[in-house]
Amino acid sequence: MLTKSHVKLITSLKQKKFRQEHQLFVVEGIKGIQEFLNSNFELYQLFSTEAVFNAEIILISEKELQKISFLKSPNTALAIFRIPAVVQKELNGLIVALDDVRDPGNLGTIIRLCDWFGIHNLLCSQSTVDCYNPKVVQATMGSLTRVHIQYVDLEGVLEDYQNEVYGTFMDGETIYSETLPSSCVIIMGNEANGISEPVKRLVTKKISIPRFGNLQATESLNVATATAIILSEFKRNSIEM
Amino acid sequence: MLTKSHVKLITSLKQKKFRQEHQLFVVEGIKGIQEFLNSNFELYQLFSTEAVFNAEIILISEKELQKISFLKSPNTALAIFRIPAVVQKELNGLIVALDDVRDPGNLGTIIRLCDWFGIHNLLCSQSTVDCYNPKVVQATMGSLTRVHIQYVDLEGVLEDYQNEVYGTFMDGETIYSETLPSSCVIIMGNEANGISEPVKRLVTKKISIPRFGNLQATESLNVATATAIILSEFKRNSIEM
Repeated sequence: MLTKSHVKLITSLKQKKFRQEHQLFVVEGIKGIQEFLNSNFELYQLFSTEAVFNAEIILISEKELQKISFLKSPNTALAIFRIPAVVQKELNGLIVALDDVRDPGNLGTIIRLCDWFGIHNLLCSQSTVDCYNPKVVQATMGSLTRVHIQYVDLEGVLEDYQNEVYGTFMDGETIYSETLPSSCVIIMGNEANGISEPVKRLVTKKISIPRFGNLQATESLNVATATAIILSEFKRNSIEM
Repeated sequence: MLTKSHVKLITSLKQKKFRQEHQLFVVEGIKGIQEFLNSNFELYQLFSTEAVFNAEIILISEKELQKISFLKSPNTALAIFRIPAVVQKELNGLIVALDDVRDPGNLGTIIRLCDWFGIHNLLCSQSTVDCYNPKVVQATMGSLTRVHIQYVDLEGVLEDYQNEVYGTFMDGETIYSETLPSSCVIIMGNEANGISEPVKRLVTKKISIPRFGNLQATESLNVATATAIILSEFKRNSIEM
């Protein structure tokens, strides 16, 4: 049975402040929940209109689901999972670092891209949107269970980092001619302002995605599509053809 | 002065049916409107809270703008432009064709990508979301003024097309090893179902974006990020390094 305190808790988890206080976050839809159940994430509570899970559920009505869902068209179930404790990982291999990415859809897409390209370490500046934001969770389609995300003091981490730090700038070397290493950090910046000044100082290699269209007019690429192109380019060289 | 009939017209333009009836669409924000004013698009009416344009405006209050805007945070002005007559263009060079892409954000991102990569011809199946949908217009950031978009019977067009027709499939040849031509059609499919059966029959070259992550689990890429990676790969070979 759905109680008032359930509703209150779930509603509160829309806000970062309460997610951090409770160390809980929401996942919706059968497929997404299934991926979290099959991962190392720990289930807290599972509300469902059908007994489709191999886990203890709180059976609710369609109307109750409508009440607690963050989605316009809720899909069968809503689960609360525990936010895992942050484990500090060694910074090996290809690492993506986000400097103040604010849009939940962009972060979700970038997490999916990291998963696709086998990048296990994603660093986020403290000002980057929370990866347990419901819109991010929804956009990641389960990739959140496979990519290790750390919110860090980006400047501090980069100051201690030994390999190259790549950043995308209009006047950088074209990514198509660079020899790209298999261990480095690639920084992607804020949607409106790009990479911030303090982080820019720590970039050791400036790269750019060449533009083929009308040079006067074309807008910059969206940060998620730019990430897609850069990761593809870094990874294409790692496979034998 | 903002009249009732203005409000009625603008509100109606949220719907494709009325955009087609009136052959008009809405652009919001100073920057976007400026790009359309500087293009071949013909202005119909321009509502603004400030006289910042080199065009005839209907001066309105902030409150009136709030009333007519489709955005949560309206920005100074809203303009109505005429939908241009469709000019049939020869299918030369690299052409992107969308088979039933439904999400306005995805179409907007793909239009921006075509603009970035200098692709002037975008074909859309009749079931693809309307490019004058306000969300698409907002997401294109002016690229709509530089990419030629035609809604066509995709099967009919592809049946008559002479060069290779590329489509992305799980079992296709990796894009990283293919020799990619400078004149061809690249088909991108629906968000949930990929390329439809009738269109699939007309694909002459199956390609795929290699996946580097956990092969069991990783979700497919979003259609807009897949387009970004494929266009970058087709274009990278066209520049001298």
